[in-house]
Amino acid sequence: MKQRFKAVVSYDGFDYAGWQIQPADRGATIQQTIQDVISAICQTPISITGSGRTDAQVHAWGQVFHFDVDFSLSAFQWKRAMNGHLPKDIHIRSVEAVDPHFHARFDAIGKRYDYRIQLGEANVFTLRYAFQSPWSLDVLTMREAAACLVGEHDFSSFCANTHAELPDQVRTITRLELVEEPGQLRLIYEGNGFMRYMVRMITGTLIEVGRGRLAPAEVSRMLEARDKQICHFNAKPQGLTLMEVYYPPQPEAGLKDSLKENADSVFPEILT
Amino acid sequence: MKQRFKAVVSYDGFDYAGWQIQPADRGATIQQTIQDVISAICQTPISITGSGRTDAQVHAWGQVFHFDVDFSLSAFQWKRAMNGHLPKDIHIRSVEAVDPHFHARFDAIGKRYDYRIQLGEANVFTLRYAFQSPWSLDVLTMREAAACLVGEHDFSSFCANTHAELPDQVRTITRLELVEEPGQLRLIYEGNGFMRYMVRMITGTLIEVGRGRLAPAEVSRMLEARDKQICHFNAKPQGLTLMEVYYPPQPEAGLKDSLKENADSVFPEILT
Repeated sequence: MKQRFKAVVSYDGFDYAGWQIQPADRGATIQQTIQDVISAICQTPISITGSGRTDAQVHAWGQVFHFDVDFSLSAFQWKRAMNGHLPKDIHIRSVEAVDPHFHARFDAIGKRYDYRIQLGEANVFTLRYAFQSPWSLDVLTMREAAACLVGEHDFSSFCANTHAELPDQVRTITRLELVEEPGQLRLIYEGNGFMRYMVRMITGTLIEVGRGRLAPAEVSRMLEARDKQICHFNAKPQGLTLMEVYYPPQPEAGLKDSLKENADSVFPEILT
Repeated sequence: MKQRFKAVVSYDGFDYAGWQIQPADRGATIQQTIQDVISAICQTPISITGSGRTDAQVHAWGQVFHFDVDFSLSAFQWKRAMNGHLPKDIHIRSVEAVDPHFHARFDAIGKRYDYRIQLGEANVFTLRYAFQSPWSLDVLTMREAAACLVGEHDFSSFCANTHAELPDQVRTITRLELVEEPGQLRLIYEGNGFMRYMVRMITGTLIEVGRGRLAPAEVSRMLEARDKQICHFNAKPQGLTLMEVYYPPQPEAGLKDSLKENADSVFPEILT
């Protein structure tokens, strides 16, 4: 008798080739590392399904995946067993038994990504977790440019060409907030879905605005152009973290709320 | 004509065998890495003198060293040249020309060390920078125990046996503060000098108190015993950071003040 489990996992992705399983010569992946541990525990091959991919060097605080096992461990035992065997830079934050129809990818109704920028002097303690900006940035102008991106838009201009085949590139960004912290600028993105490179390309564009090399009006023109060739900016991956994946309210909503509360302070505040 | 320079350096020590030059098979050291860069710039062997050692995996925000060169670069050019050639996990924060009699070790009148403890759930983003405590800690009791260590004492009970030959183990701790931050407990130590392992052994002892395995009164008995055999606790190195080295006021005091302001917020605040 199979049981489906939902797990929330955090990882320092800096040393990994991303979430998605790759040919071994491309480096270790998060998905493969977790599957190997679950399969070893079950002594049979088990595959896991994530809410979506994260690219090489991208981090996660609240990535979600599900897996089906007939091995009789409780959710609590699964969490302890996985953390006991996983490398320390991958940590399972929670495991819960869910309805067999729950699907980590198809049921997701939204995601939150944070992008961290270290301002001023380089900081050796945020090398792995923030883009070390050699430039000072005009945050007010960046906010002005960001405003035009909030809402439902065709984001063709801000996604990888590899998505040309997607039926449509219409997504809704419900929140794009620039938070100033000691020595850091944090961009908080929430929306119903993000295409590959979308957050990094928007961030790279906003950084150009902050440097004074692009006017806010040009950003809205780029958006309206719906042209995959128009944006050549792609912010470095190590600044990006998948903070949380949102699902419709379920019995375990209490847990998701508690995770959400935390999301604002999960990361370092570092001085310049 | 030789010029002496004083440099303030920050480093993520997690991947290094400490400050002090070691046989190559013991791993890379901070001192060797910096000397190699300076020597390459000068195209002649140059040695540097640090304010003191840091152990393997221990970090620094404000380690200080001096070096003498007759190569004609300004302090600003030296900073830029060194950072251009150093690995990213070692960053020179400042360089200044100083009097030839300035000595990074002998002139130091005090130091500040911070020790970081991650409480609750392990956090993948502080693995390198904080001790991940599997135990909850009673901070009030720890503060009670810490109080008896402040002031001038013979700290023989809290230093490595290798110091048995030192003329005396009397040191003054001017500040031992336990600061509660989101998900973290930070111990701030300031004093006129710290012997090898002294901060880690005191921290390890206070952790035992926080766990309820040692009473505050026993800590003061340990201190009074002046017995190098009495303390078997030594907190993990990656939680420790040399924050700042203090020198008597000098023309460049303005700089040191500005560094000091920052010291409280240099590091991540991470949630559990």
